[in-house]
Order: sequence, then structure tokens, then C-alpha cells
Amino acid sequence: MEYAAIRHFADKKYCFATEKGRFLIRLETKKNDIKSVILHTQDKYLPLRLQDTRQTFPMEIAFSDNYIDYYESAIEIDVVCLRYFFELEDTSGKKTYYGNHCFYDDRITSIDRMFDCPQNLREEERFELPAWAENKVVYQIFPSRFATDKEIPDELWYQTPINHKTDLKGSLRGIIGRLPYIKELGADILYMTPIFSSDSSHKYNTADYYKIDPSFGSKEDLKELVSRAHSLGMYVILDGVFNHTGIDFFAFRDVTEHREQSKYLDWYYIDSFPLVMERGKKPSYKTFSYAGFMPKLNLQNPETADFVIDVASYWIRECDIDGWRLDVGDEISHTFWKRFRKAIKAVKPDALIVGEIWHFAGDFLEGDEWDSVMNYQFYHSVHDLLVTEDLSASSFLGNLDFMKGNLNTRLEGFLWNLIDSHDTARFLHSAGYDLRKQKLAAALQLLLPGMPMIYYGDEVALGGGPDPDCRRGMLWDENRQNRELLDYYRTLLRVRRNYPALTKGVLAKQYTDDDTGLIYMERKLEEQNVILLFHTRKGTVELPELKGMRNLIGNQSFEGRLGDYEAAVF
Amino acid sequence: MEYAAIRHFADKKYCFATEKGRFLIRLETKKNDIKSVILHTQDKYLPLRLQDTRQTFPMEIAFSDNYIDYYESAIEIDVVCLRYFFELEDTSGKKTYYGNHCFYDDRITSIDRMFDCPQNLREEERFELPAWAENKVVYQIFPSRFATDKEIPDELWYQTPINHKTDLKGSLRGIIGRLPYIKELGADILYMTPIFSSDSSHKYNTADYYKIDPSFGSKEDLKELVSRAHSLGMYVILDGVFNHTGIDFFAFRDVTEHREQSKYLDWYYIDSFPLVMERGKKPSYKTFSYAGFMPKLNLQNPETADFVIDVASYWIRECDIDGWRLDVGDEISHTFWKRFRKAIKAVKPDALIVGEIWHFAGDFLEGDEWDSVMNYQFYHSVHDLLVTEDLSASSFLGNLDFMKGNLNTRLEGFLWNLIDSHDTARFLHSAGYDLRKQKLAAALQLLLPGMPMIYYGDEVALGGGPDPDCRRGMLWDENRQNRELLDYYRTLLRVRRNYPALTKGVLAKQYTDDDTGLIYMERKLEEQNVILLFHTRKGTVELPELKGMRNLIGNQSFEGRLGDYEAAVF
Repeated sequence: MEYAAIRHFADKKYCFATEKGRFLIRLETKKNDIKSVILHTQDKYLPLRLQDTRQTFPMEIAFSDNYIDYYESAIEIDVVCLRYFFELEDTSGKKTYYGNHCFYDDRITSIDRMFDCPQNLREEERFELPAWAENKVVYQIFPSRFATDKEIPDELWYQTPINHKTDLKGSLRGIIGRLPYIKELGADILYMTPIFSSDSSHKYNTADYYKIDPSFGSKEDLKELVSRAHSLGMYVILDGVFNHTGIDFFAFRDVTEHREQSKYLDWYYIDSFPLVMERGKKPSYKTFSYAGFMPKLNLQNPETADFVIDVASYWIRECDIDGWRLDVGDEISHTFWKRFRKAIKAVKPDALIVGEIWHFAGDFLEGDEWDSVMNYQFYHSVHDLLVTEDLSASSFLGNLDFMKGNLNTRLEGFLWNLIDSHDTARFLHSAGYDLRKQKLAAALQLLLPGMPMIYYGDEVALGGGPDPDCRRGMLWDENRQNRELLDYYRTLLRVRRNYPALTKGVLAKQYTDDDTGLIYMERKLEEQNVILLFHTRKGTVELPELKGMRNLIGNQSFEGRLGDYEAAVF
Repeated sequence: MEYAAIRHFADKKYCFATEKGRFLIRLETKKNDIKSVILHTQDKYLPLRLQDTRQTFPMEIAFSDNYIDYYESAIEIDVVCLRYFFELEDTSGKKTYYGNHCFYDDRITSIDRMFDCPQNLREEERFELPAWAENKVVYQIFPSRFATDKEIPDELWYQTPINHKTDLKGSLRGIIGRLPYIKELGADILYMTPIFSSDSSHKYNTADYYKIDPSFGSKEDLKELVSRAHSLGMYVILDGVFNHTGIDFFAFRDVTEHREQSKYLDWYYIDSFPLVMERGKKPSYKTFSYAGFMPKLNLQNPETADFVIDVASYWIRECDIDGWRLDVGDEISHTFWKRFRKAIKAVKPDALIVGEIWHFAGDFLEGDEWDSVMNYQFYHSVHDLLVTEDLSASSFLGNLDFMKGNLNTRLEGFLWNLIDSHDTARFLHSAGYDLRKQKLAAALQLLLPGMPMIYYGDEVALGGGPDPDCRRGMLWDENRQNRELLDYYRTLLRVRRNYPALTKGVLAKQYTDDDTGLIYMERKLEEQNVILLFHTRKGTVELPELKGMRNLIGNQSFEGRLGDYEAAVF
């Protein structure tokens, strides 16, 4: 038995309320090491002589990543404190009893040697997620290049290479005009990169948080955009750039001007005056990266924190937006995010809060900070599986399951699964413009649980290398669009919508074959039973037993085999 | 290589600032599985073509528990974000590179595949502990039975068995009179169980949080007690019973009287009226345990939270107390404790906040809630080692090291190591009144790092089984005291004070022999080098190589052997 890999903490990661009175208890063990786990529970405060409250529950492997089996048991309780321990039996028949981080040869009888779950505490810290967002599809827009209501010649709009300065006159009214397109594609949520007053095309250096950039439009335009989106059953998320401002933001201007005397001195982290802000030199104040034009806000200063929270509340109140994506979220303190969450949810209880972080982000996702993250773990895994092909099909699933195993269970339906973004090369570009790979990546993104984030243009084969090339003008000219790919995306999204078993179903069966690169999954939801196939490699894989089934992708009878990078759904 | 046991998260448990610019990075691996670990670091935002910021640092096993080696490396950094990964080589020579929860065969070059440490964020959430308290010795007093300034006949004071009602007329002025005794013993901090107005002897059912119980004295008495303690260089900690009140607390009285119409209805968790509060029935409101006379406060109600925080602040402001021990701390929400910490530290920045919890408490000890806990893990480990003797010497140390490995490093000097309390039988009682075991337990408690908590009377062999028997009148009659044990305690505490290497030193060498039950430790601090021996079993263990050294316990020449349950310090 591999004791070193047996892990449980009586905290909100391993023992939490999914609803009042209903708890999930989790235990990690080394993969394939343990034959059975039994959960033993007992009321802490009711002595056995008064009432025998002891119960046992079998635990099941809910899923496994590449190294760990994640055991779970869902139980119903009504106590002040629950005491519990685990009975583990390994494949050789050896048994151990595990309670409060010690192992025992015999059944644990002392309640003080068991793990402890205070029911009320855990219920009060239950992770409340905005139900509307679960498994919804996000469409990411780079507003200055997505659509315009102004005149602009095609040769300018479709120019490549594009640079940071290129002005394509993108606008909110342009986006409003394209809402039906996005709706028809099958996306539910618009996420726009920053739209506030700023002198760059990307607008990540904000000058005025209370003003829509004039080139994009006005507050009224945003109001209309949101209200039109809502009437189409869609939602709108804005980009909150709260880690840093631009240098023409009023507070930083004041600091530049009045130096040590500025009443905004504490809004930033200034090391010394005169300010060093030239390109190529290390700024004399904290910044995003080492970029002098993006001075970092000091959100430990309550006044600054108040300001940012007011901004975030303002746009919800004024324009009824549905949430915030938080730029460079991981470089801002947990203390601030806890406050931010409370404030935002007070204005709009079901607002969605999504952090930008390129790494595993468990500590931001404990229920009192963010609701979700841009899932770059997914991005990396899809790339390793399909671009470099140095990740096996089983390890790909293992990577996804690592996230599941280390985050609150419900988060699976909220992670923003992306294959590219405004900060990366287009997936299509990385994949050598192999459309088969693009399709399979889309299938993985759109047919698995989570909130897929489609970067505008991916669906019509818009290309582009790393930033700024990945921010080209959207392909609106049908002759420039890959219509077959667009159909493919629409089909996937229709299938996703029509078969909730895909996202909410129980994973009834799953296997992978690393020789052929096949992933097989079966998901069930009530009467609905869906089979998913992803062939992640070149070549042919034979599946004669499925021959004749109707493939929901393409709606044709399945021929019993999958070709290069092909997916199928039955 | 046991991948399932390799563990690191880029969070405040595994990667944190010990001071500005100085970080500790930790990695867990299976015990004895890995030969060497190298930490690779790199500046996230400075491209290598501009400056090669790559560095490597060897990692060392700082300590090991029973199953895990804890590798650590202390590094100095000055970046916006640090990226890092681990190079592990196992005993067979196999190498792996570990970054952001994936393993690679080759050195990681993509910064996005590394772990991420935003320096500013981690520095801002640095665990600030009240330095004065580190490794200080706590003396726990049960005020109604410790000392009195009133007349009470010996036959009443020393009566056994004692029950919950027995009134021994203990008082604050009685305690004041005994401060010199406690000082002379060598303790630094007085922790008194509750002293506020309440109709029980233990006073855990508070009637009035703003009033010292009249039988104990007055606010003026507490002021004087604290001021006298301070002038002796001592500190005073009160017991904060904020999980629940008594039924004669004004808010609960109002609820009893006005039922649904009470404006204090939301101060509690009331299921239904009429209130069911009879003994033996499950109360119709949340309580501590199922005790109707201890209704649980609803601290999610901001008004209730305000009240409690005001109480806690009031006694600091009014009487200059040095901190709070928090009763049933683990059944109150993290949200409340975060708020509590901020409020208390605003009144007295170095106030000590110690939670009562009988379990591993990592989630309360992340720097934004408590400073420490009553270390019942220590209590259980000492009992298993010496009372039931079913824990080996090496597993005893393993248990302590589990705590070290899973908490912020600095906490080791703050954990309240106890061998008994007002809630347990006396250790002496559990050990069958074997004074040799009591002495060894005291030596383990008082000679290791941490904040030993001596339960009043332990030092003079005051006996007693489980509550209420463990709350007998203190033995003040010298004829009833075990003077030899008292001398032993005084000696240990003098040694502890005179040899800071014991608490602050580096563990230069350590081994255990589970056959003889010997624990050998060597601690170094600058010029000071201390050797510690604990013989945890019956019989004789020979240590001829140490013969002739001066044993600081007893100040005699060491004869080269240890007898039953004997300790020595050189």
C-alpha cells in the first residue's frame, strides 16, 4: 500500500457541502493501488451509549488522473459535527484505517482520532456558482478588430501582417450588428477584451475606467449591446484590467506631476523619483511585466480597492453586464479578490467572475474569490496532444482529471476551455494549418464539459501567429471564410445543445488506446446515452461494433472506422 | 520514482515569502525515493535574449515525516513573477522535470510549463506572526479552581471527586497573588479559561461578555492582573467563547421571550418555536454539541459578528490583554475568522490568536485567520508514545514532522504543545500516575520547539480523570505538592530559557532507535550546540560515548546510560 500517496484533509477541498445536508467526501490514493475504500462516519457529539450513529458508505473511484485515483462518496448528514475515517484495503488484501493523518491497524473507535467535519461551517462556505453559466459557450471578441459600423476598405480590414497600432475601426455597434451571427453559431456568452478609454488597440493600459473608448462607442452603445444580447438569450462579460492602469490614468498622471506630494502616491508601488519609465529600462515602480506604460495598482490601499470595486460595480449597475474576466488575476492578492467577490455578488448575485491565470489556480477557486478561470491547462493539453503529439490520449485525459481532482467538483462545468486566445498564436497556425487538427481540437473543446471559449474567427479558419498576428480583422467575407469549418463548429454546438448528456451526464464508460490514439467515452443522463469518439492520431482506427450507428457529426451512418484526427458522436 | 507522491502547488503552502524578497519553496516526495532535487528558476517577464535570468538551487530534505520527505530551498528574488520547476533524480538515476503539475523527460524551457510565483502577491499575504510569542511557555488556569483571595477550608479546596457545580471561590485576585509562583516556574503566558459572567463553574455559557463574573472579580481586577503580569514580563490570554452563548445572554433571552418577533432572531439558528431545550432532547436550534444551554451564534449575521468583534476588541482596549484563545474555533466560518483577525490586529497588531481545534488545522493557519492552535496532535502523539506505548519513537517524530510539513514553517514555534487540558484527563492520570512518564512527557513538551501549554497543577502532580475531575483545586499546600516534580519542571524551563538552540536552533542531527525507544537530537544555534536524549521506553539504553558529559537536567555528570523513560540534555 502506498501510504505516501494517500491523502485527505478535512477541509473544503476534500470534504464539502454540495447543498445543505449533502456532502462530498474525497480521498486520494495511488492509482491502481487500492482495492476498496469504505467511509466510516459517526456523530461527534452523540455518545454511542445514547444512540449508535455509526454508518458506513462505500467509496468509488470517481475518476483518475495519470497517477492518482480520486475516491468519492456523497453522503447526507444532519449533525453538528461529523467524525469519519477511511478503511482501505489494497490489492494484496492488506487493510489500514486512516483518521486525522494517522494510520491504524484496527478500526478507529476514538472520535478524536477521526477526521472532523463541522457541518454548519462547511455549509456556510459552500461554493455558490452562477447556475446560468454552467457549460455555456463563450465567444471571445477583440473589439478593435472584430466588426465595425464604419467604412473601411477590405484591403485594410484583411491586411496581414497586422501590428499593435493597426486601426480597423472596430466598434460596439459593429459587434451589435454581428450578434445574430454569434447566436447562430451557437455561442451563449460574449467576452470582449477591454473596451475602456485607452490609447492602444488592445486597451490593456486603461486611461479612464468609467468611459468606453470613443473609437468603440459610448455607454449607450454598451447598454444596447447588452440588452440586445440579453434579448437573444445571451450574456456579456467584460475584461477587468485591475492589476495595472495606463500612464494617462488620472492617478498616475497626478503621481507623475506631484511626485512625493501626490495624494495618489499610495495607489502605486513607487520605488523612487524621478520615475524611470523608458522602454528597455527597469521601471522605478511596480508594473505589469516590466512595462513602464502599465503601472501596477496597489490594491492593498483601501482607497484604490474601493475605486476598482466601484468601477466593477458601476458597469454592472449601469449596463447590466453579466460578469468580469480578470486580467492578470493571479498577480493580485487573495484578500482583494475575496472583497471583490462579496462586492460584485452584492450588486448582481449571479455575476460570473473569471480569472486570467495560466496555471493551476486552486487557491483562487475555493468559493470565496473567482467562479472560474481561463483554462490554459486545457490549452496546453490540447496542444501537446495534437500539435506536438507528445502527449498520449490517456495522459491528455489524465491532465483534465488532475484539474477535476484538485478543484471543487462543480467547477468542471465552469472552466473556460480554450485552444487559443488573443495572447497566443491561433491553434490553426500552431497546427500547421491542418484543418483536421483544428476540427478535432474544436470537438474536444466543444463536446466535453466546461465552458468552451471560442476565440473569434477560429470557426472560419482565421489564421495568425503570436500576438499581434493573432488579432487580425475577423473574416466576414464569405469567400474568405472556411464555410465547411464554420458548419462543423455549428454542428458541434448544436449537438452540444441538444445532448445535455455530453455536459451534465455521468461518465458511464471511458477508455483510451494509446497505440491508436483513440478516446472512447460514454455519457448518460436519464434516458440519454451518448458515445463520443476522438481519434487523436493519424491513420485509421477500426470500430466495427459501432458500424451503422448514426454519427451526429454529419448525421450519417458510421462506417465503422475513424480516419486521421476524426471525431464522432452517437 | 513514485510520481503519485510528488507534490507541489504554487500556493502559499508550498511557495511563500518568509520576508520581503526571501522565499521558501517546498516540494514533497515519497520518503527515501529521491536522490536529489534541483530547483530551476527564471524571470517570467525578461526574455532570455535580453537577459539570462536562469538560476539553479539545490534543494535539501528539511525533515521527513513517516512517509514523506519535505524538500526545501530558501531563495532570494526580485522579479515581478518567478517561474520555476524541479529536476528530480531518483535512487536509480532516473530523472524527471516537474512543472505546473506535469512531468517531462527534458529540461523545461517554456515558461508557461513552469510553476508560477507572483512575488508581490506572495509578499502581501506573508504570514505575520507576533514575534514575542514564539516558543514562549503558556500556563493554563481554570480560574474557579486555581487560587482564591477568599476564605475556604482546606477540606473543601482539596476535595475529590469534584463536580461541575463545586464552588472553590477562585478569583482574579487569587491569581494575582500567585503570579510570582507562575513566573518562578518559568512560564511566560497566562491563559485563563472563561472569566465572563456565567452561571457555571467553567463559564463556557456566557451571560454577559462585557462583565467579569462577579465571583471572579471586576474589570479593575483584570486590569491589575494584566498590568502586574506585564510588569513581570508576562502576557495574558483570555478565552473567547464566540461559537455560542448561554441562554441568559440578552439576545437569546429576547428570542425566548419574543420568539419570531425578536429582533435578535437572526443572532441564532432557530429551527422552530416553541424552543425545545430540555436535556436529552435535540434542541430546536443550533447549539454547541446538542447542549440546549449553549445556543450557537449566527456569525454570518453582520450584526452578530460586529458584536463579537467589539467584545474581543473591548477587552484588549480596556485591559490590555495580549490575545484570545478561541473556543470551538473550528465550528466557526473562515469568513468570520478572517474578519476577526483584521479587526483584532487593528486594535493590537501583535495580539496572539489561538484556535481551539482538536484536528489538523491547516486551513485556519494560512496567515489570515489564526496565529496558532492548541496542538492536540502533539497531545495524541505523546499519549500514544508514552501511555499506550503503541507509537514508536520514530513515528512520534514523524507525526510532529507531518505538522511541520503541512503548515507554514514559522508556525513550529507557535503551536501550543499540550499533554492535557481542562477538556482531558490529566496526563498523569492516563499514565497510571507513573511519575517517570509524566517527567518524560514534560521533557518532550518543554524541550522541543513550540509553545508548551502547561495545565495548572501538572507541575506538582495534581491528578484527575476526565472532566470534571481534571479541574480540581490547585495544590498550594506544599505537603500535597510533589516538590521533586516541581523542581524538574523548573529545571526544564530554565534549560529551555538558557539554551535558545533548543527552540531556535537548527536540527543538526537526529536519529531514533525503535528497539530501545531512544530519540537523539542535536540542535545548533551559532556557538551553542545542544544534545537531547529521550528514552521513551522502559529498560536501559547505553550511550557510553556521552559518558561524563554534564546533563543539564540535574546538572550531574552523565553515567553513560538512560533508565526507564529518562531524558537528558547536554
